[in-house]
Amino acid sequence: MKFEIKHHDAAGRIGRLITNHGSVTTPLLLPVINPNKMSITPQMMKEKFGVQAVITNSYIIHQHQKLYDTALAEGVHSLIDFDGPIMTDSGTFQSYMYGEIEMDPLTIVRFQRDIGSDIGTILDIFGTPDQTKEEAEDAVNTTVERAKQSISEKKEMNLACPVQGSIYPSLRSYCAKKLGELNADMHPIGGVVPLMENQQYTHLIKVILASKKGLPVNRPVHLFGAGHPLIFPLAAALGCDIFDSSAYIKYAKQNRLIFPWGTEKIDDLYELPCSCPVCSTISLSELRSLPKKKREQKIAEHNLFISISELKKVRNAIMQGRLWELVEQRASANPFLQDALHEIHNMNHINWLEQFEPVRKTRGLFYTGIHTIHQPFFYRLHARLIQWFNQSSSTLILLDESEKPFSTAYIDILFRIAKEYPKEDIIVDSAIGPVPIDLDEMYPFAQYIFPDFLDIGTKQVRKKRWEECLKDKKIIRWEIEGITPNLTLNEKNHLQKIFDERKVRSVAQMQFGLDIAHILFNGVISLVKSKKTSKIRNVFVDDDHVVSMRASDGLFTLKLNGGKKVHKHSSSPRFRVVIDDDAVPFVKEGKSGFSKFVISVDPRLRPYDECIVVSKKDEFLAIGQCLLSPCEMGRFRFGQAVKIREHIK
Amino acid sequence: MKFEIKHHDAAGRIGRLITNHGSVTTPLLLPVINPNKMSITPQMMKEKFGVQAVITNSYIIHQHQKLYDTALAEGVHSLIDFDGPIMTDSGTFQSYMYGEIEMDPLTIVRFQRDIGSDIGTILDIFGTPDQTKEEAEDAVNTTVERAKQSISEKKEMNLACPVQGSIYPSLRSYCAKKLGELNADMHPIGGVVPLMENQQYTHLIKVILASKKGLPVNRPVHLFGAGHPLIFPLAAALGCDIFDSSAYIKYAKQNRLIFPWGTEKIDDLYELPCSCPVCSTISLSELRSLPKKKREQKIAEHNLFISISELKKVRNAIMQGRLWELVEQRASANPFLQDALHEIHNMNHINWLEQFEPVRKTRGLFYTGIHTIHQPFFYRLHARLIQWFNQSSSTLILLDESEKPFSTAYIDILFRIAKEYPKEDIIVDSAIGPVPIDLDEMYPFAQYIFPDFLDIGTKQVRKKRWEECLKDKKIIRWEIEGITPNLTLNEKNHLQKIFDERKVRSVAQMQFGLDIAHILFNGVISLVKSKKTSKIRNVFVDDDHVVSMRASDGLFTLKLNGGKKVHKHSSSPRFRVVIDDDAVPFVKEGKSGFSKFVISVDPRLRPYDECIVVSKKDEFLAIGQCLLSPCEMGRFRFGQAVKIREHIK
Repeated sequence: MKFEIKHHDAAGRIGRLITNHGSVTTPLLLPVINPNKMSITPQMMKEKFGVQAVITNSYIIHQHQKLYDTALAEGVHSLIDFDGPIMTDSGTFQSYMYGEIEMDPLTIVRFQRDIGSDIGTILDIFGTPDQTKEEAEDAVNTTVERAKQSISEKKEMNLACPVQGSIYPSLRSYCAKKLGELNADMHPIGGVVPLMENQQYTHLIKVILASKKGLPVNRPVHLFGAGHPLIFPLAAALGCDIFDSSAYIKYAKQNRLIFPWGTEKIDDLYELPCSCPVCSTISLSELRSLPKKKREQKIAEHNLFISISELKKVRNAIMQGRLWELVEQRASANPFLQDALHEIHNMNHINWLEQFEPVRKTRGLFYTGIHTIHQPFFYRLHARLIQWFNQSSSTLILLDESEKPFSTAYIDILFRIAKEYPKEDIIVDSAIGPVPIDLDEMYPFAQYIFPDFLDIGTKQVRKKRWEECLKDKKIIRWEIEGITPNLTLNEKNHLQKIFDERKVRSVAQMQFGLDIAHILFNGVISLVKSKKTSKIRNVFVDDDHVVSMRASDGLFTLKLNGGKKVHKHSSSPRFRVVIDDDAVPFVKEGKSGFSKFVISVDPRLRPYDECIVVSKKDEFLAIGQCLLSPCEMGRFRFGQAVKIREHIK
Repeated sequence: MKFEIKHHDAAGRIGRLITNHGSVTTPLLLPVINPNKMSITPQMMKEKFGVQAVITNSYIIHQHQKLYDTALAEGVHSLIDFDGPIMTDSGTFQSYMYGEIEMDPLTIVRFQRDIGSDIGTILDIFGTPDQTKEEAEDAVNTTVERAKQSISEKKEMNLACPVQGSIYPSLRSYCAKKLGELNADMHPIGGVVPLMENQQYTHLIKVILASKKGLPVNRPVHLFGAGHPLIFPLAAALGCDIFDSSAYIKYAKQNRLIFPWGTEKIDDLYELPCSCPVCSTISLSELRSLPKKKREQKIAEHNLFISISELKKVRNAIMQGRLWELVEQRASANPFLQDALHEIHNMNHINWLEQFEPVRKTRGLFYTGIHTIHQPFFYRLHARLIQWFNQSSSTLILLDESEKPFSTAYIDILFRIAKEYPKEDIIVDSAIGPVPIDLDEMYPFAQYIFPDFLDIGTKQVRKKRWEECLKDKKIIRWEIEGITPNLTLNEKNHLQKIFDERKVRSVAQMQFGLDIAHILFNGVISLVKSKKTSKIRNVFVDDDHVVSMRASDGLFTLKLNGGKKVHKHSSSPRFRVVIDDDAVPFVKEGKSGFSKFVISVDPRLRPYDECIVVSKKDEFLAIGQCLLSPCEMGRFRFGQAVKIREHIK
């Protein structure tokens, strides 16, 4: 199956899934179509709701003679009158709901293939949360066995092989690994409907994470039966790409309206707290007094509008780098989601999540509450800060928090400090921890927005991180009051130059690591600064332009000469993306660094990190920006791994 | 002005405002109509957006000859073609924006009156946040002086007199008090636009609270210039009834889309994260490529849909008793709002807010984060618990938290404890503090939903409250493990009867106070329980039916005989709503207890508390449920104060 990643945030991703009936953008919701009763037709879904793809049930089609005949004769697209991608389910959920079904696992796969399903699903064994580990293991083994057999029948059809394993993370990972070894195309995470129905979100995210950790990173993951928007942001943040919803119609039949914060019975409402096209054109009392069928239809439409717009919010949040923020906001509406978020603070999860976390985001970093400080980004930041402090002066001058960026707000004070402590590093006591003043324009130190009042849990984490950074250091708290020294312009310029050089080295160390920073700035540094903003723009070393600094986030972009320096003075695989010989000519022409050509990568790189591109023989080819995590590069057969910015000719 | 309150939550209220052009429900948004340029006409607002009332600017009308002539000849309703209530502003904001304006304060009031404005506004002095206290005081004095003069000109028109006073709470309260003494009809809180523009929400809520504390409780309060939905829930929770928005059009002109969580520039979006009728029918790229005028129009419509639906959410939350929950959820999107919420934890504010807080809500009490435990409701609960513990046994048996209700989950253990500790009270170590097991079905002890993982701040508050309740008590932690005693049915029934009587007395004490509980249950208690649920239904004392217990929230409703007992054994004003003689015949007929007839009230009563209704001579008339806070009864000239449930003939 053709699946590529366009953007990262959290462990979530904007992906593109290509089928014979067109390509779709993930995270994506597949509304469930009941072929027997389409209260909202697929055509209407496309036109009125912008639905890109749907899911329908091959088991139901198979069991109804008329549907069966039509589907085989004209195909499933004609049967339900939809020309976009159609996924089919296989009857597994029916077996869970209504007990054993009579269906041969291979028959239903062949049937899906023959009716032209874009993505078929094997008949797996639904593992319920109340299973013993032994029962769950049996179900997993049968599922894996069926997957093996089914794959030989799939031919051109994409085949989804669901991960089972009840609530046992080790079984989920095992099942995921076994299925990952097969030539499957997509992996639903199955057996999770009971967990969602009972709001057991902590179990749910353990199941998702265990499955994700076991699965090949390049295959789309579908959270089977997840149709309530409440779970979309969190599931997407953990790397779920596809959701499917019969909830819109199921809840409508129960007179329940879906909202991002939960579900409301029509009788418990006093007004329609919604701006969707349905709720904007009808009052609650009008809705209540509609005939049953008509009311169900209206509520189903509302439910679909809300579900689809929540996925728009998720995709937009990924693009804006604010997915964790959205997740945390949603959790504020549901105590069980809060518990699930708390489970993520577990370092096993954080470490896995961190590898997908971009190094930069385009928007400010907002505090939403107690969970913000536990975002994987902050753990990485802290690890890098500890390294920075390992290299800092043993005495540190401490300033209180001020307007951002700190070095601009405190410039006169910096001059004063330089007179007394010319060699000492200066740090600021910020809401997110000790910030070296040299890093004050670097993301996120100029971009975080925290309240004046911090919750006690955040304060404690901050204190702990503070201690880990500053142990063995002598701290001198600098009094802001004092007389600004009377410096000549020359003296000021001289000091500013020292500050700027410090900033360049410090930022490079935080961004690239100490080794790369040493290589880049091993020589005489000269700077070009913006005339308008006085910010550092370009950095030259011995007349070579090695890096530029982005005004938006204070991070460096590597220049070709910088890349050459790094290449010359470091050894593989450090800072490198190694590509296959076949791709060398393309990279030399400045074409994209496609993932499928990547042979190896420096495991320290992260999405949106700067990197150098080399051949198998470590020939320097280009500099660019990573678009994937190292664990993804090479694994994805489609899409780019590196955005080439400059290349040798 | 006719203004009555229909429902309470937080210090917010569902009100009904009656004008010559119809009645409207508050909290309400008045979209600003520019009489020179109506990009969305008032008619369209009514039909497409369900707008109930609008605000337009009499100063602009006055300064444009053509508008002036038409308005005087045909009235402002004809001028802007709107037959609902129209409020007019006076030019104050123009003087803030563009400097001094040439307008006589009385001329503009007369003009508003003459063009038939439903609610005119005096020409007050806009107090900016950067004023010194002396400057602000001058502005306040001039505003009050102008209000006095203007009121004599208003005739049949309702007149709004804005509270000024910059950021000085004492001045705001002073101004509010002075204006409150005048015959004004409505009170905007003015001079707050700069605070909202700079997200100085902590200042804003101080200003709102200081103004509200000074104003007569029965007049509608308008947060002048508040048009961004971000602030609607919090402002409504503090008792603001009316908002006005030019934001929808102002932001549209800047290509900015309004959302409940803030504002997004069209260029910073990747998809339209919204389900409104505009965003459901157009893609972001289509919206971007529209011609400027057309794009502005679309964005303005989106902004209006979102603003109006946020007020629907606010009204729905008030009706559901979940306004604080909505406030807290919204604050999770904005660190400055979090700081404002933190300011509310101040006991001065809590004590003022608590008097409006209903004693019961129809929905569960959800934890949203660090602020939940600081809701005024919890402070009241804690104060009442301390009183309960003052009366409890000196040794307490402690059980861990379990399924709710606790007494059902723990019934066997309760039997065991009763064998060993027949006289000791039993408490449960719950997420919200120590819960006497007798209260386990009483709101909120059976209705709270907190996460397993509590933030440290909440834990600390919980610990402090725990200590305040249990100081001087001996605690015995009961081991759940053990052998269930082999009791005969008779023994069980006997014990259950003891438990039930304890429950009845405990709930009454928490709900009504110890004095009233003693009066009600001074005699032989007998119970009628639900055959289906085994829950207590009716309580008899010496064969008199004194109270019933509501299954939904475990609170008592008073019966006529109970009311008579309370009346006989307590003295005025305890538990009483005293009404004027004129109203006595109506109450005796079971008609509503209108607020305007209330002479005095027991200040301990709260909205939705049970009460007895008496005449000036303390003649017992009826029992009922308070619909207002004591501070509101009698002050409101319209609407009910008490819902009469039973009355003497």
